[in-house]
Amino acid sequence: MLRLGHRAGRDPRLTTHAALAARALGADRMYLHPPDPDLAERIRSVTRRWGGTFEVVGTDDWRTLLRQFDGTVVHLTMYGVPLDRVAPRIRPSARVLLVIGGAKVPFEIYERADYNVAVGAQPHSEVAAVALALDRLVGPVPAGRFSGGSVRIRPSARGKRVVEAGTPR
Amino acid sequence: MLRLGHRAGRDPRLTTHAALAARALGADRMYLHPPDPDLAERIRSVTRRWGGTFEVVGTDDWRTLLRQFDGTVVHLTMYGVPLDRVAPRIRPSARVLLVIGGAKVPFEIYERADYNVAVGAQPHSEVAAVALALDRLVGPVPAGRFSGGSVRIRPSARGKRVVEAGTPR
Repeated sequence: MLRLGHRAGRDPRLTTHAALAARALGADRMYLHPPDPDLAERIRSVTRRWGGTFEVVGTDDWRTLLRQFDGTVVHLTMYGVPLDRVAPRIRPSARVLLVIGGAKVPFEIYERADYNVAVGAQPHSEVAAVALALDRLVGPVPAGRFSGGSVRIRPSARGKRVVEAGTPR
Repeated sequence: MLRLGHRAGRDPRLTTHAALAARALGADRMYLHPPDPDLAERIRSVTRRWGGTFEVVGTDDWRTLLRQFDGTVVHLTMYGVPLDRVAPRIRPSARVLLVIGGAKVPFEIYERADYNVAVGAQPHSEVAAVALALDRLVGPVPAGRFSGGSVRIRPSARGKRVVEAGTPR
């Protein structure tokens, strides 16, 4: 995923949520423009604790990143074509870069993208768009993806059960 | 949907995104605790412009709301049982209240909920959780749900096309 237009000076929660949703739903990495080392470190500590290899990589040059990306570029925008219509064409791609921005995404993103994809033609949230796009493109995320963490959750009908990794069921 | 633990003094974007995702994905209303009239008004103007009847209703008393709610209460928490396992049991309900909070949701929410439901047993985002829960429980949202707005989007492979409502295709 590439997250454009992050504003490090403002509340970082929206970008943090985008990163966590991407991680939980099967993304490998979030490129972040502009870089935000504090946010990257917070996500790194989530990955250390909860497992897997997801990382945040700051970038000052998203144009080069997009030019050199060797795969399918999918720009998530409410103005695009419906996700469910194009998902079958995107799914076979071995590498997909989801691009999320804000209201002021440069037009060259629309031009560079292999697909401009909408999750519903209504204003909503890039966090929701990432979640639904990954759901459709990646599908169920196997628990093994999050190996190596120090804790894990035991699903529970009431309350919170967090156990140390390696604890037998 | 009931959104708990909103902090009006802080950046409201996360709650705004939760509201917009809920609206776009088929919810009727967001109860917001504590109330935030500015946020409610911003969402009202989105609904005026983009159609439908979604609204934000502030509440100071979520306990009474939950006690009196006449339907199925679904608390979204990463500690709960997997969404896809319980969705078939929830879908037949005529009225569902999704509850989202933060890290410090009072334990009585876990007790009151008919279902404590997880969208993946990993930390992520209440915005992503709302999006995926509505996707599974409501399914595709018909365009007619957003009638009455002044603008609509024509899906486009490149760029942005927004037309006045009523314009012929």
